[in-house]
Amino acid sequence: MTTQSPSAIDWESKLAERAGGLYGSMTRKLMSVLADPEIISFGGGLPAWDLFPLDKIREVTDELLRTDGPLTLQYSTSEGFLPLREQVATRYRKRGFDVSVDNVMIVTGAMQGIDLVGKLFLEKGDAVVLGEPTFLTALQTFSFYQARFLSVPLDEHGMRIDRLPEILEGNDVKFIYIMPTFQNPTGRTLSLERRHQLLEIAERYGVPIVEDDAYGELRFDGDPLPPLKALDTRGSVIYMSSFSKTLSPGLRVGVILAPGALMEKLVFAKQIADLHTSVLPQRIVHEFLRRDWLDPHICRIVEAYRKRRDAMFAAMKKHFPPGVSWSRPEGGIFLWVALPKEMDTDAILDGALAEKVMYVPGSCYYGAGGGTNALRLNFSGYTEDRINVGIERLAKVIKRS
Amino acid sequence: MTTQSPSAIDWESKLAERAGGLYGSMTRKLMSVLADPEIISFGGGLPAWDLFPLDKIREVTDELLRTDGPLTLQYSTSEGFLPLREQVATRYRKRGFDVSVDNVMIVTGAMQGIDLVGKLFLEKGDAVVLGEPTFLTALQTFSFYQARFLSVPLDEHGMRIDRLPEILEGNDVKFIYIMPTFQNPTGRTLSLERRHQLLEIAERYGVPIVEDDAYGELRFDGDPLPPLKALDTRGSVIYMSSFSKTLSPGLRVGVILAPGALMEKLVFAKQIADLHTSVLPQRIVHEFLRRDWLDPHICRIVEAYRKRRDAMFAAMKKHFPPGVSWSRPEGGIFLWVALPKEMDTDAILDGALAEKVMYVPGSCYYGAGGGTNALRLNFSGYTEDRINVGIERLAKVIKRS
Repeated sequence: MTTQSPSAIDWESKLAERAGGLYGSMTRKLMSVLADPEIISFGGGLPAWDLFPLDKIREVTDELLRTDGPLTLQYSTSEGFLPLREQVATRYRKRGFDVSVDNVMIVTGAMQGIDLVGKLFLEKGDAVVLGEPTFLTALQTFSFYQARFLSVPLDEHGMRIDRLPEILEGNDVKFIYIMPTFQNPTGRTLSLERRHQLLEIAERYGVPIVEDDAYGELRFDGDPLPPLKALDTRGSVIYMSSFSKTLSPGLRVGVILAPGALMEKLVFAKQIADLHTSVLPQRIVHEFLRRDWLDPHICRIVEAYRKRRDAMFAAMKKHFPPGVSWSRPEGGIFLWVALPKEMDTDAILDGALAEKVMYVPGSCYYGAGGGTNALRLNFSGYTEDRINVGIERLAKVIKRS
Repeated sequence: MTTQSPSAIDWESKLAERAGGLYGSMTRKLMSVLADPEIISFGGGLPAWDLFPLDKIREVTDELLRTDGPLTLQYSTSEGFLPLREQVATRYRKRGFDVSVDNVMIVTGAMQGIDLVGKLFLEKGDAVVLGEPTFLTALQTFSFYQARFLSVPLDEHGMRIDRLPEILEGNDVKFIYIMPTFQNPTGRTLSLERRHQLLEIAERYGVPIVEDDAYGELRFDGDPLPPLKALDTRGSVIYMSSFSKTLSPGLRVGVILAPGALMEKLVFAKQIADLHTSVLPQRIVHEFLRRDWLDPHICRIVEAYRKRRDAMFAAMKKHFPPGVSWSRPEGGIFLWVALPKEMDTDAILDGALAEKVMYVPGSCYYGAGGGTNALRLNFSGYTEDRINVGIERLAKVIKRS
């Protein structure tokens, strides 16, 4: 820190009300743990370190800078690199989305999509419906825009859609935020029947759905389910996803697919947020799509992650004491562990760090309390033997708590 | 656009009030003009197409992916890539800034810095002081957060600081936004005397200064002036700059240097905005700093831009009719042209586009009207002969209007 004289500014008095509640977040704690290589962190949502397609990324990057360098380094359009938007539109049309290139905007990770939605929709006190537990960053972002949360519980088939009509009847809701497939933090997936019900209810009440599909392409078992956007015939769904889990998170390239009526607003919000997403990363992603390199790469990841998930299942079965249960995700990168009711996963985190293992306490994923006996584990970041070691460490902490 | 049935959603009713006033912006019009290679656009703020250090960027990118690929592609910290932050802190300490690495955050272009400041500080009706004309994106961003503007006129020495006390006396001001050096859009520079006065006044009234120094390193003539942050002994200045004009705008790498008391808030706002800036671009910038490649490159740019500015001065002198005057910037990439008072630069823009030349009408840079007879010209984007052709085209439009 600087050695400046006492500040001339009373910063607190200058900040907006929305900035008042900010605090050091779990997300950053997770990132800082990366600095200690001895800690096995099941906390973050990191893709496998050893599976990045480095040679291919090197090859296309070199070619781009050699053959089209100036356009790769110059300013570009806020909507995103046009050939990438075209590839994205084509890719999603094949999955049943009724979209054209005009419905596609490139964002700096799907997280930026969540922020842009918050920015455009939310004022102090506005109601957002979400299943709980839910994605921590979504909670933080919508909280920042001073939303209030109307929570719907989850069961093994995802959000309890049967609870929605009662909530929508009594409240003016800005949107329903949902991660229907391999949800963060539980790994659970909304059933097909519930997907149809959700769309029908959202249309009936005229409430938009914000669909976050960051993990949907990482399916290990079972039949693929259509994203909500693929079932959306009346333009109710704002869809977002990213290439963070399928190619590289460090590139920060995500997508929003939205109804035409919203695109001008989204593009303007994007323009004032960062003008456009970094071009070189956009073009690396574009080359992977254009050359049909992404899907084979996803197959490799899925193979590896399936083994890692299974290794975690096996290790938990072997090491965890009775009374501990866990979700059974068919894909994604997370699973959800419930300890006996009286245990407090916030309280035992320091003990876990002392044993050189990290998780995220369940309470992080609840807007208004809950999940105190639960925790989230990531299974994509380590090889099978490290997963076994980490779970053994965690089991030790649980047993003595 | 999609062929969907009538939307189930009344989007207007769902949007936040702040999203109501969005509109297709001049910034995006400028970008879309890039698609027509026949148009000579003095409108955008594009660095020279022919001066990107392509071979060096290729070299470091290849090396990074070869020797440290996984860390380049994995998630990183919201503060930014630590070795880059260290290089940035060192660089600015050499320029007299009282900062450490803890005062540095990497952002997705300085524009993101402006957005984060808006997000943290501004609520509906809050007062922001700025010189007019001023940077269009700053106006748009602060307008989005529903600020009201208290304008200070500019003269040839920049913002009329003598007007400030009266404004600060009568208003509760959130911050003063200023681009003191080679200001966008006029190219004008705040004098040293006024820099000291501005700091003294800001301290006296306890009002933060947001210093935008996107162009400060591009000086062709005259002596360098210290940024406000270099004179700031009491932590009143939030400083932002970027590598867009000195290395590549497409990379989207900028910096914020802020007082320690603000850093936690800024980092949290950054985290929920896009988690972190794309790592590969950050590391390319870092390599340029670490290898001492940036300053020699800036020297090359400055040489070229000086010639281009001089070519524009010469062409304007040769082709423009009497009654047209222009600013005389000692650096940067923009200058400001005043046509005779009765002329309307918004009205003649279509005529200019028909002649295949583009500028930005002066009115864009005023929050509450003004500049209707002025226009902004960029001189960095074209070689001298093209600049002459473009100015000749523009002169033709002016003469017949």
